Amino acid sequence: MTKIMSPEELEQELRAIGAERYHDKHPFHKLLHGGKLNKGQVQAWALNRYCYQSAVPRKDAALMSRCHDRQLRRDWIHRIMDHDGFGEEEGGIERWLVLTGGLGLDRDYVVSMKGALPETRFAVEAYVNFVREKTLVEAVASSLTELFAPLIVKERLAAILSHYPWVDPEGLQYFRNRLSQAPRDAEHALALVLEGMRTLDEQQRAVAALEFKCDVLWCLLDAVERGPIPGTVV
Amino acid sequence: MTKIMSPEELEQELRAIGAERYHDKHPFHKLLHGGKLNKGQVQAWALNRYCYQSAVPRKDAALMSRCHDRQLRRDWIHRIMDHDGFGEEEGGIERWLVLTGGLGLDRDYVVSMKGALPETRFAVEAYVNFVREKTLVEAVASSLTELFAPLIVKERLAAILSHYPWVDPEGLQYFRNRLSQAPRDAEHALALVLEGMRTLDEQQRAVAALEFKCDVLWCLLDAVERGPIPGTVV
Repeated sequence: MTKIMSPEELEQELRAIGAERYHDKHPFHKLLHGGKLNKGQVQAWALNRYCYQSAVPRKDAALMSRCHDRQLRRDWIHRIMDHDGFGEEEGGIERWLVLTGGLGLDRDYVVSMKGALPETRFAVEAYVNFVREKTLVEAVASSLTELFAPLIVKERLAAILSHYPWVDPEGLQYFRNRLSQAPRDAEHALALVLEGMRTLDEQQRAVAALEFKCDVLWCLLDAVERGPIPGTVV
Repeated sequence: MTKIMSPEELEQELRAIGAERYHDKHPFHKLLHGGKLNKGQVQAWALNRYCYQSAVPRKDAALMSRCHDRQLRRDWIHRIMDHDGFGEEEGGIERWLVLTGGLGLDRDYVVSMKGALPETRFAVEAYVNFVREKTLVEAVASSLTELFAPLIVKERLAAILSHYPWVDPEGLQYFRNRLSQAPRDAEHALALVLEGMRTLDEQQRAVAALEFKCDVLWCLLDAVERGPIPGTVV
């Protein structure tokens, strides 16, 4: 990528990143969706992924804390509420805990993250710090993995229901909600990135931000695939 | 302050800070509430104070971005919405712009902050950075000037209405809303601080955080009292 792109070309470039390195290409993802995991592996996946879920509101608050544009903050805040819940709405983190509970994992143990792998925590905090430290538009661009989420989520619902009879279907509500939330958020973020990143340097940063975020998600699966490090009690 | 205090003693210590150095003790505040300012001075006050108002959601988002406790984030997020607005609710920043508009100031000029004094911006950003960098409980403690706000706000409504006939009463809605918002927020934050700060070091930090925040508000009035620095066009 060595010359300035039109917004359409930049969108194509960004979507190509997903086609190449979104975590649906990861071997462990294929095992999960192919019904090849045992219950312990699905537990490990859900437990580690909780670290990511629970960090998303901090990431979005970090983004808002750097945003001087009131309208953008107003347009972004529902992302925090989608995950944390608000008032009567339980939120995505709570729904994830229903999933892990349905898998037989103790709620306090999951929330404590004591069973999560170090690589998982490092990757997740790298994401929060990226949003804290890079430019605001790079932070927005790093959220664009949502562009690729709906397909994987739709597949996941079907795959988990068909392959893992010991998963409580109630526990999958998290994914059902994301089917409408992710496309709305991705469309908004994509518009901001295409509008806000016009110079070559900015466009390269947008691409790098999305690659970085794909790396975060990829490393989560790497960690779970490799399993506990020596000396760890799970 | 050299020994650990009971929660009751700490509360007393914190309230004593307000009695001594909250910005209602500032000479410019006394002029404002005493009806001694001309329209240009009230404009300058409202214009500079806008910087503070508009930074509050970034401050609260910074606090949330450091908070690993989902319940605390859920309890804190309404502060952002109180200022930014949400959905149909216009929010406190918008209400402040109604005030400045009623004072004859152009909205875009106010929002641009081009007319704000450097000291104002420095003080406001010092506050945002304090919340970003100190411990979470210190960040919470720095919000405790809300403890002292209701009295000043009630007085302000009466003073402005009686002394400055050229102020549009509609423009004072910001203050009316704060009459209920500030005590609720202060009570919550105070409980967190009294609960969370039990060691001598922590209690000293709580006191220092509130003193710091009083300094921020004090410096805002210092800046407006001194007026434009050389070379500034207002």
